[in-house]
Amino acid sequence: MASCGSLKSMCRLSSLVQDPNNCFTSRSPWTNARGKPSTKRKFTRIVAVGKDKSNNETVHIQRIANGSPATILRYSGEKPDTPILDKIDHPINMKNLSIEDLEKLADELREEIVYTVSETGGHLSSNLGVAELTVSLHHIFNTPNDKIIWDVGHQAYPHKILTGRRSRMGTMRQTSGLAGFPKRDESEHDAFGAGHSSTSISAGLGMAVGRDLLGKDNHVIAVIGDGAMTAGQAYEAMNNAGYLESNLIIILNDNRQVSLPTATLDGPAPPVGALSQSLIRLQTSRKFRQLRDVAKEVTKKLGNKTHEVAAKMDSYMRGVVTGQGASMFEELGLYYVGPVDGHNVEDLVYVLSKIKSMPDPGPVLVHIVTEKGKGYLPAEMAADKMHGVVKFNTQSGKQTKAKSKTLSYTQYFADSLVAEAERDDKIVAIHAAMGGGTGLNTFQKRFPKRCFDVGIAEQHAVTFAAGLATEGLKPFCAIYSSFLQRGYDQVVHDVDLQKLPVRFALDRAGLVGADGPTHCGAFDTTFMACLPNMVVMAPSCEAELINMVATAATIDDRPSCFRFPRGNGIGSYIPSDSRGTPIEVGKGRVLKEGDRVALLGYGTIVQSCLEASTLLQLHGISVTVADARFCKPLDGNLIKQLAHNHEVLITLEEGSIGGFSSHVSHFLASNGLLDGNLKWRAMTLPDKYIEHGAQPNQIEEAGLSPNHIAATVLSLIGKSNDILHVFNI
Amino acid sequence: MASCGSLKSMCRLSSLVQDPNNCFTSRSPWTNARGKPSTKRKFTRIVAVGKDKSNNETVHIQRIANGSPATILRYSGEKPDTPILDKIDHPINMKNLSIEDLEKLADELREEIVYTVSETGGHLSSNLGVAELTVSLHHIFNTPNDKIIWDVGHQAYPHKILTGRRSRMGTMRQTSGLAGFPKRDESEHDAFGAGHSSTSISAGLGMAVGRDLLGKDNHVIAVIGDGAMTAGQAYEAMNNAGYLESNLIIILNDNRQVSLPTATLDGPAPPVGALSQSLIRLQTSRKFRQLRDVAKEVTKKLGNKTHEVAAKMDSYMRGVVTGQGASMFEELGLYYVGPVDGHNVEDLVYVLSKIKSMPDPGPVLVHIVTEKGKGYLPAEMAADKMHGVVKFNTQSGKQTKAKSKTLSYTQYFADSLVAEAERDDKIVAIHAAMGGGTGLNTFQKRFPKRCFDVGIAEQHAVTFAAGLATEGLKPFCAIYSSFLQRGYDQVVHDVDLQKLPVRFALDRAGLVGADGPTHCGAFDTTFMACLPNMVVMAPSCEAELINMVATAATIDDRPSCFRFPRGNGIGSYIPSDSRGTPIEVGKGRVLKEGDRVALLGYGTIVQSCLEASTLLQLHGISVTVADARFCKPLDGNLIKQLAHNHEVLITLEEGSIGGFSSHVSHFLASNGLLDGNLKWRAMTLPDKYIEHGAQPNQIEEAGLSPNHIAATVLSLIGKSNDILHVFNI
Repeated sequence: MASCGSLKSMCRLSSLVQDPNNCFTSRSPWTNARGKPSTKRKFTRIVAVGKDKSNNETVHIQRIANGSPATILRYSGEKPDTPILDKIDHPINMKNLSIEDLEKLADELREEIVYTVSETGGHLSSNLGVAELTVSLHHIFNTPNDKIIWDVGHQAYPHKILTGRRSRMGTMRQTSGLAGFPKRDESEHDAFGAGHSSTSISAGLGMAVGRDLLGKDNHVIAVIGDGAMTAGQAYEAMNNAGYLESNLIIILNDNRQVSLPTATLDGPAPPVGALSQSLIRLQTSRKFRQLRDVAKEVTKKLGNKTHEVAAKMDSYMRGVVTGQGASMFEELGLYYVGPVDGHNVEDLVYVLSKIKSMPDPGPVLVHIVTEKGKGYLPAEMAADKMHGVVKFNTQSGKQTKAKSKTLSYTQYFADSLVAEAERDDKIVAIHAAMGGGTGLNTFQKRFPKRCFDVGIAEQHAVTFAAGLATEGLKPFCAIYSSFLQRGYDQVVHDVDLQKLPVRFALDRAGLVGADGPTHCGAFDTTFMACLPNMVVMAPSCEAELINMVATAATIDDRPSCFRFPRGNGIGSYIPSDSRGTPIEVGKGRVLKEGDRVALLGYGTIVQSCLEASTLLQLHGISVTVADARFCKPLDGNLIKQLAHNHEVLITLEEGSIGGFSSHVSHFLASNGLLDGNLKWRAMTLPDKYIEHGAQPNQIEEAGLSPNHIAATVLSLIGKSNDILHVFNI
Repeated sequence: MASCGSLKSMCRLSSLVQDPNNCFTSRSPWTNARGKPSTKRKFTRIVAVGKDKSNNETVHIQRIANGSPATILRYSGEKPDTPILDKIDHPINMKNLSIEDLEKLADELREEIVYTVSETGGHLSSNLGVAELTVSLHHIFNTPNDKIIWDVGHQAYPHKILTGRRSRMGTMRQTSGLAGFPKRDESEHDAFGAGHSSTSISAGLGMAVGRDLLGKDNHVIAVIGDGAMTAGQAYEAMNNAGYLESNLIIILNDNRQVSLPTATLDGPAPPVGALSQSLIRLQTSRKFRQLRDVAKEVTKKLGNKTHEVAAKMDSYMRGVVTGQGASMFEELGLYYVGPVDGHNVEDLVYVLSKIKSMPDPGPVLVHIVTEKGKGYLPAEMAADKMHGVVKFNTQSGKQTKAKSKTLSYTQYFADSLVAEAERDDKIVAIHAAMGGGTGLNTFQKRFPKRCFDVGIAEQHAVTFAAGLATEGLKPFCAIYSSFLQRGYDQVVHDVDLQKLPVRFALDRAGLVGADGPTHCGAFDTTFMACLPNMVVMAPSCEAELINMVATAATIDDRPSCFRFPRGNGIGSYIPSDSRGTPIEVGKGRVLKEGDRVALLGYGTIVQSCLEASTLLQLHGISVTVADARFCKPLDGNLIKQLAHNHEVLITLEEGSIGGFSSHVSHFLASNGLLDGNLKWRAMTLPDKYIEHGAQPNQIEEAGLSPNHIAATVLSLIGKSNDILHVFNI
């Protein structure tokens, strides 16, 4: 591993591996808040990874902060020594730490996180990026009295470790373990739950205004990333904050990773949105007078010798580096401070303590610049920065991916959409900063001009797709089920009401495992199937999924959607070209013929119905299993046939009340099919949020396992006493 | 009516009635595009209304544009003469009109609109504000090949008149008449439908990108107001437009009326949001080089004498007036031009034609400044600018309001919330730029520090309310049913999942009459009642509404919502202090006892159930009428009792499938109540969008009138042959 000793050496590198725009150190001032070199540093921080063209060797560029000594963090695979962290049970223990100890604490946190996440999987690089910020915040502010709101929440691991949850980090995202996101139920230090992006400024403003109304004087700090800043809600909140002028600290954690893919598909995604460019340019604050005055006072006290220091301080506080004009944030009424080196504890502590001491600053935005994956070389070098990982080797960063004979539903979707697009050049794809998660990176590679990453902006994504549809294009809008909630009005008002043929691919439908209830796709069938013009589908397996992609491609006179789960396919036959065959709209199918009980499943729960039918067969109960395929339009003939020919009809779905089962019940009633002795029952997700954990555990808790289905049948046909015994429920 | 002859006189006014920030003319340049006075003008335009403190007289400030003569438009009540407009059947007829004729056409349009809207009611002032813009756009661009997208659509009347719909303007917003908003089905000139705000840039960008992909070369123009700019979707779209760099013209119609109340309650609302202040400051463009080059070329051709003109032109094109820095729009990657006087046809035509002639300008934002209600004195002087009106007298502007013995549900809600807030200082109110529409102007007057207008920003409104709830406040978030669709993810993720006690007051639930399907509150019960923690209520009359306000105030451990319709109460008893009595959560009630048929209504449809029961009584059919009150939690005992004791049970609601009836059906099934001979039927809104028109007509079309209910009952008990005869259905 070659290295060079100073920032200047970077100039000798003929080519950087990363986009230079992503390599902030080349333009960051790296000046110390006090304007003089610190002698306390012990670690060299790697600030860029380059490739020397002369010998093609990878070069790790280290920052010698102000000429001070430093060392590289190395990961041995052993549990790291964490002497300072070991003394922190509560943020109160951090108040008297020196800057040097805080710096060490940040590095210990990072090592601890790499170690624990290598065992549990979870979000990695976003947490490594905020080690110094988290340490500085908890050193300066006093949670839970002061409120820190972590936007999205990917980056809350250091916060969790420092607020009494260190011993439980090994349970992260597991059943009954710590949540992967901040969670109000979990700790009084978690001021606001998250999981979805860009809510922190709104919540923080509410807390700030609430504090003012109640005459309290605590601080409220919202920490939000540059990616999250692309969402409209952040803008709405900043606009309102600038108007209300309540005291609120917004920390913009700018890691130049807008729209980073958040799943495991490879390929770097460049930041999207013009805002990203603006942030790169953003170097000036013109109005932060009060803070500058404080700074000047401090320097005055240091006497004549500090004249130069005072000038640097003033320059620093104004952030005048390249002489840009006003920022968007100032336009929105915020006081802008920055950019601040987000890995420099001394600077962070200085700036935060000054802001804290100001009597009435109004809404302040502190722009800090950090690196995702900071200090852990494999993460810094990875295309996706190791954003979300499974278990991995700490030395190499290599993840231990479970081998599977099948691909994820996501990948089947993406491959089949590419196959459709090969044959129809009007097919275009849209996603909202989720090229990895939705699989559309695959599409992007094949058809770069027909794939649109609009940033974290589901509202815009939907109406943008509607606009494309008016021109005769065939947009596929791929959005997670729970994220489409954010574009719901646009689905209703811009797409469905105008009957525009936008196709919605709803990934992560149903229970999603470790990400928990924020990401659970529970409500989509309910909120989509009530819309008059929408075709609403769900495949029972991956072969059906690609058939529904093909079906959606042919539906060109109205909108359509199809939902599919997190996880891998069941191994059904997929043609070598990945292209599906269109299904007749509104046509279900019978998979297994029986005569006493009918199970009518919607989506992949059909597989559980088949398993249940096998169990019931052992008890001599003849079961029909049908795959509804469509919630809208329903297959009326199929439902009539099932209702007429069976004693019991159970509708099943991994979704909330109000969806498929409700549509079937209305159909049954309006056709008089419930007036006789048919026993109809609905098995849906229960009326509660199901916490994070393994998907099978969640299915058990939801009561939707094959055993539960079989037990429900037995109960309905009067064999209830056997149930617990037979199925261990 | 005193008047003063020039802009300078305004300085002599000791106090302006309006906020000076709203009086744009005091800082608007009013320079002509060619830098010289026009001699063609015939009309004086009133640009501000002030009050002279010395004698307290109202003063109408007129603009003598560049010293040219002008006259005031006067309204006699007679149908106006419109010689130029009479020749326009299609925009093609406008291509060869002179600037002078276009100016006349704009004034004729205004007179025509005042005349027709005085007969039909509808949106008035926003249309008067865009007369010159509409004329200029249709003169320069060629719809339907070029696409003009009117954001929200309040301002599309001039566009409708000029695109072949003039003869039908008298049918505006009536059953089978013209829609009050742009509508793709209505005309090929309506590129995109609207009704909800802030979608135009997204749609326009989709159309622009679609055009590029298909190799076409038409223009796309999105017209969006400064109010609509406060919504996050507009920001998301601008950010994406700046990134994609597709050619798109965004016209920011800045009338300094951010967040104007849109209903009939009085009281001016100051613009909210920091953006509004930024727009006022916004005077500079730095990068519009290509446009300036075009301008310079034009002036070069005019020879030496035009040196001064060229300088002015350059200055004009840059919009350099006060020397501000970069604008937010530039930060987002748009080319900014402005501000342009939006009532100066010559300027508008000049700027638009130059932009049209540019080969590849990318996304351009043209900032025009207009006045809502322009040219019609009663509108200019009204606190709400006569935004939405019923029939009125054209001379006085006085509206012919129907007398009613009862108030609107909106007003009962607002009064009772004030009554609650008098007794509980933790109650706060939030709305999204709808102080008039939601009635919260009443609350604002009484508790100015406890009422928050957050701008057109439903997403932020909901999470902001959640933040307030974490602090122990009791937020009531008043949002129209259909507008809450825009804050749905926040309701799920920030409120319900965290079980925070935010109270949602959902006005305009069910069919809404003239505003049509964009404003119809069809889906709220469906998308709210599927959420695990939400209490979901609907009152059957105004007395129940105020009781539910009181109930929501007491529910402090989880979120709650209640829906109520557009229109007036039925005359039920309201205490003099307007304060309701809390209802036991989950407790319905029987209003009328019968023994054969049970009607279980949810919401104000209960009144129709009572009417239907009276009709059925005439046929000797004994009917129970019950008021469910709660969709969640359901009154299980009441439902069991109704199911056990009746042959037929009908659930009724003015809402879509998936809501109350679905919840009842699941309850019935899981309790085995559908296994016997009970006939259960659901009467909901039909599975289609119901067009604008009178509410009674809509109810008929929906099949939810008392006659329909009675007919359904007769049909179910085997008297179907009588139905058509008896109820004229």
